[in-house]
Amino acid sequence: MRIAVLGTGTVGRTIAARLSELGHEVTVGTRDPQTTLARSEVDQMGNQPFSAWASAHPDVAVLSFADAALGAELVVNATNGAAALEVLSQAGEENLAGKVLIDISNPLDFSHGMPPTLFVKDTDSLGEQLQRRFPNVRVVKTLNTLNANLMAHPASLPEPTTVFVSGDNPDAKTIVTSLLHSFGHTDVIDLGGIETARGTEMWLPLWLRLMGALGTAAFNLRIVR
Amino acid sequence: MRIAVLGTGTVGRTIAARLSELGHEVTVGTRDPQTTLARSEVDQMGNQPFSAWASAHPDVAVLSFADAALGAELVVNATNGAAALEVLSQAGEENLAGKVLIDISNPLDFSHGMPPTLFVKDTDSLGEQLQRRFPNVRVVKTLNTLNANLMAHPASLPEPTTVFVSGDNPDAKTIVTSLLHSFGHTDVIDLGGIETARGTEMWLPLWLRLMGALGTAAFNLRIVR
Repeated sequence: MRIAVLGTGTVGRTIAARLSELGHEVTVGTRDPQTTLARSEVDQMGNQPFSAWASAHPDVAVLSFADAALGAELVVNATNGAAALEVLSQAGEENLAGKVLIDISNPLDFSHGMPPTLFVKDTDSLGEQLQRRFPNVRVVKTLNTLNANLMAHPASLPEPTTVFVSGDNPDAKTIVTSLLHSFGHTDVIDLGGIETARGTEMWLPLWLRLMGALGTAAFNLRIVR
Repeated sequence: MRIAVLGTGTVGRTIAARLSELGHEVTVGTRDPQTTLARSEVDQMGNQPFSAWASAHPDVAVLSFADAALGAELVVNATNGAAALEVLSQAGEENLAGKVLIDISNPLDFSHGMPPTLFVKDTDSLGEQLQRRFPNVRVVKTLNTLNANLMAHPASLPEPTTVFVSGDNPDAKTIVTSLLHSFGHTDVIDLGGIETARGTEMWLPLWLRLMGALGTAAFNLRIVR
């Protein structure tokens, strides 16, 4: 499949690399490809310069948000939550129309210090905000409940774990579930419509405390039933 | 141990019965024992009349909130979240002082329909509200993340699952963790101070969607790491 991954942070890089490894035709979208590729410093999360990552992944083209979305059949939102609406606007409503949008972003608000709070919750969600803003896009919220490496390589945990899909379009959820299976996810629970993204986005506060208590992000939940 | 369980709903009954079965000296606290024992109808949750439950559990005395708290070494808040502060006030600050309070309640707000929202979240929690209101009580938030039957009988699930403790007093958490082990919980994660109750209380929105998607409340999460 032709897939555009919007965002060049840890999540974007990890998902783009995994999709490319699985044989998809992958592009990464960024605000200004020249600037992104010119970066030669380690970023604030400790990632290698994007240019080094790009050199190591020659099959993944780096394009503007709009060009990446235009050429794709499926788009992945791997931006930080605060930037999501603006990035998708830059990608262009006309370039996204009719396509499946996998939304991995979380509405994290770092303005009150650590751990972050949520800038939307409980009676609304970021997933719903994106779906309302782009009614012709088929938004599927998923993978926002675990660490980037485990999103792409779930089998690195000692036991199978669970991920979720939320979205209004059943066909879109089927496509996304199939992609998740190809990543190695064996337990994908369909929570229902996009409003169920409130549930997975509100998991983040517990995830953050667990990371603190366990001293690692290498964990995920399994729903035992 | 002498334990008072405040609340006569599903959670209160289930926890009181389990503690009694394990050999503890258990009382149940209610607003007005005469009225509670006189009830002869099935309640709004479909539970048998409390009088029938009390007859089946003759070792569990039914007392006022204050009398139950007064005679106990450890108190369990099994009320609904909206009533928690008022019930504990009725139990009496002087009767609770210095004691461990297990807080199982969740801040569910049913005023907007189903599923419920949360009346406190993200920058505060019900656990913290109780601890602030009763600074001499050693509040431990736990068991608010799963169905009442599974709180008391976790081994009825096919695999071990995880529960959490949040609280400012390490000795209180040790006492509570020991009780949880006696119930059959094998994986108890100490999340940290009482402010980490924000995490477990915000798990409820996902729990509620999972109950909808799975068609059962007989599930729990396991933290795989």
